[in-house]
Amino acid sequence: MAPIKNGRHLFNEVPVGYPVPGKTTVYDESETIDLETVPLNGGILIKALSFSIDPYMRGKMRAPTKKSYSPPYAIGEPLNNHAVGLVLRSENPSFKAGDHVWAFLPFQEYVVQTNVAHVKLLENKENIPWSNYVGAAGMPGQTAYLGWKIFSKAKKGETVFVTTGAGPVGSIVAQLAKLGGLKVIASAGSDEKVEFMKKIGVDVAFNYKTTDTVKVLEEHGPIDIYWDNVGGATLEAALDAANPYARFIECGMISQYNQTSPYGVKNLMNIVGKRLSINGFIVSDHMTPENAKDFYDTIPAMIAKGELVFLEDKKYGLDKVGEAILDVQSGKNHGKSVIVVAEE
Amino acid sequence: MAPIKNGRHLFNEVPVGYPVPGKTTVYDESETIDLETVPLNGGILIKALSFSIDPYMRGKMRAPTKKSYSPPYAIGEPLNNHAVGLVLRSENPSFKAGDHVWAFLPFQEYVVQTNVAHVKLLENKENIPWSNYVGAAGMPGQTAYLGWKIFSKAKKGETVFVTTGAGPVGSIVAQLAKLGGLKVIASAGSDEKVEFMKKIGVDVAFNYKTTDTVKVLEEHGPIDIYWDNVGGATLEAALDAANPYARFIECGMISQYNQTSPYGVKNLMNIVGKRLSINGFIVSDHMTPENAKDFYDTIPAMIAKGELVFLEDKKYGLDKVGEAILDVQSGKNHGKSVIVVAEE
Repeated sequence: MAPIKNGRHLFNEVPVGYPVPGKTTVYDESETIDLETVPLNGGILIKALSFSIDPYMRGKMRAPTKKSYSPPYAIGEPLNNHAVGLVLRSENPSFKAGDHVWAFLPFQEYVVQTNVAHVKLLENKENIPWSNYVGAAGMPGQTAYLGWKIFSKAKKGETVFVTTGAGPVGSIVAQLAKLGGLKVIASAGSDEKVEFMKKIGVDVAFNYKTTDTVKVLEEHGPIDIYWDNVGGATLEAALDAANPYARFIECGMISQYNQTSPYGVKNLMNIVGKRLSINGFIVSDHMTPENAKDFYDTIPAMIAKGELVFLEDKKYGLDKVGEAILDVQSGKNHGKSVIVVAEE
Repeated sequence: MAPIKNGRHLFNEVPVGYPVPGKTTVYDESETIDLETVPLNGGILIKALSFSIDPYMRGKMRAPTKKSYSPPYAIGEPLNNHAVGLVLRSENPSFKAGDHVWAFLPFQEYVVQTNVAHVKLLENKENIPWSNYVGAAGMPGQTAYLGWKIFSKAKKGETVFVTTGAGPVGSIVAQLAKLGGLKVIASAGSDEKVEFMKKIGVDVAFNYKTTDTVKVLEEHGPIDIYWDNVGGATLEAALDAANPYARFIECGMISQYNQTSPYGVKNLMNIVGKRLSINGFIVSDHMTPENAKDFYDTIPAMIAKGELVFLEDKKYGLDKVGEAILDVQSGKNHGKSVIVVAEE
C-alpha cells in the first residue's frame, strides 16, 4: 500500500489573549505514512478516532520558560491531548488490531506509540459511543467524579454552586450533587445552556451574562460547596456567599486564561473568617488504580442507563481544531468539545 | 469597705481605617464597685491582671449588621478579650479566692462572672509569668501550636514562610518549624524585629518594608508551607513562590484590616496549577479537651525550659488600651501586646 497523508494540527506561536485559529495553531498535511510498512519497534500503530478539546490546553500554549503543571506545547510540533483510537497493528502482546484505546496522543491521524504505559484498553461493556471516552467517561468525567468524591465532603441538604454547569465537567458535577441530595445552583453563558441545566435537574440555573451572580447567590445561597471552573469575579462572589466551613474545589479558572491583566480578588479574608478550605486539583494526580477502577466501574454504566446526561459538541476533521479550541475558550461550545477524526 | 472605681475601656464608634485612641475607644472611670458586697449570684468575682491585645479585635469594631465569625463590639460597652485574672471571692465550688484563671473578660478592672463555662483554672506548675497565659501560653500560642499541628503537614527539610515572624503567633510558629527540622523564612516590619527573629533561629529573616518579599522568596524559596498573618501582596508573593502541593495556613490578614480599598490578589490560578491546599482557621474551633490538654501539657513547659522564646510588649493601665490596639494594627508593638492592669 502506498503512503497516505497523515494530517496534523501544529502549535505555531504563543498567543496573546485568545488563541487565533490558523495563526496560534495550523493544520498541516505535509506528512505521509505507510500504514503497512511503518516500523512499530515493539509498539502499536493507532488510528485516531476522537480528540478531546479542553480548557486547560490554553495553559500549554505558553513560552517554554514559563513553568506550569503540564508541559508546554512545542512550536512546530502537534498539539496533544486525550483521545480515543483504534489499534491497526500491534507488536505488543497487550494490544491487538481492532482494540479501542484511551491515550494521550499527538494531534495527527495516525501515530506509532512505543511507550504504551499510559495507553488504556477500553472494554466498553456498556456499549456507549466511543467518543464518550474523551468526555463523561474520559478526563472531564474523571475530573468531576474524583474531584467531587475526594474534596466535596458533600452532605445531603447542602447547597453547591457549580460554574460552567452545562459543560462536560460542571454538568456531571451538578448531576452527582443532585443524586447526593444537594440543592444545586449552576451558571452558564447562554440561555440554551440554562435550558440544558434545568433538564438535568439543576435547581437554580442562570445565565451569568444576563443575571448578576452576586444577586443569585444572595437569594439562593449561602453555599456549602463551590465548584470553580471560572475564577475571577465569580470566585469573589462565591467567597462572599460561602457558609462557614464551606469547601471550594478549584478545578479551573477559565475567565482568567485569556486575560492579559487578571482579575484581582479582594475578599480573601473570608477564608479566615469563615474557615474555608480551598483545594486546587488536577485529576491525573488522583488516577490511582483504585480510583480508575471505581470510575470505570461506575460512570460508563450510569451513562448507559441514562442516569448521567451530557452533550457533545462534535467537529469533524483535524483542520477544525483551532476553531474548537477558540470555542471552548470563549464558551461558544455547547457540550463536550470533541474532534472526530474518523468514526471507526 | 467603700465602693472603689472600676475603670473600663469602652467601644465608642466604628472606625474608618485605623482605630483612633480616645475616639474609636475611650477609657471610662464612672463606674464603681464594692468588692465585699457586690452580689455574686453563684458566680465569681475576678480582678483582671492582664488583657491580651490581638490583631483580630479590629474585626469586632464593626457595624452590628455586618456578619463575621466573632460578635461585634457594642457601642458604649467595654471591649473584651482573653485575660488572666485573680479570683477575689467565689460562690462556685470549682473556684476559690486566690485562684488564677484564664477567661474571656470585658475590659474592666473587676467583673462578676456568673457563667464560668469558659473560665479556665490555671495551674501554672511551671511557674511562668502569669502574663504569658495571654501570650505564648494563651490564645496566640494555641493558634500557633494547633494551627501548625493540624494544618502544616510539615516534613523535615521543607521550607516554610512565616509572616509577622516576630509576633506572638509567628515567632512560635517559626520556633516550632525549626524544632521540626524545616528551613524558616520569616518577615517582620522593623530591623529590631529581624534581629529577634535571627535570635530565635529563623534562617532567612527580613524586613519587608526595606526588602522585597518577592525577591527573598525567589532567592530562598520555593516554599512548601505559608503561614499567613498578613494577606494582600504578601499572599500573592507566596502563591507565586509555592511548590506544588504547598499548604497555606490562613490565620489572619492584618495588611487588609484597616484598608478601605482591599488589595486584589491576581494570581489565584496557582491554586489549581500547583494543587495548593488553603485552610482558614480560628483556633477556638479546635480547642477540644484533647487539644487543650496537649497544649497545656506542652507549651508552658517549653517556655519554662527556654525552648520557646518570645517577647512581651507590656503597657500598664486600662487607659492605654486604645494606644496598644493601634500599635498592634500598625505593627509598632514589639512582641505580644499585653495590658497589665495589676501585677497580682
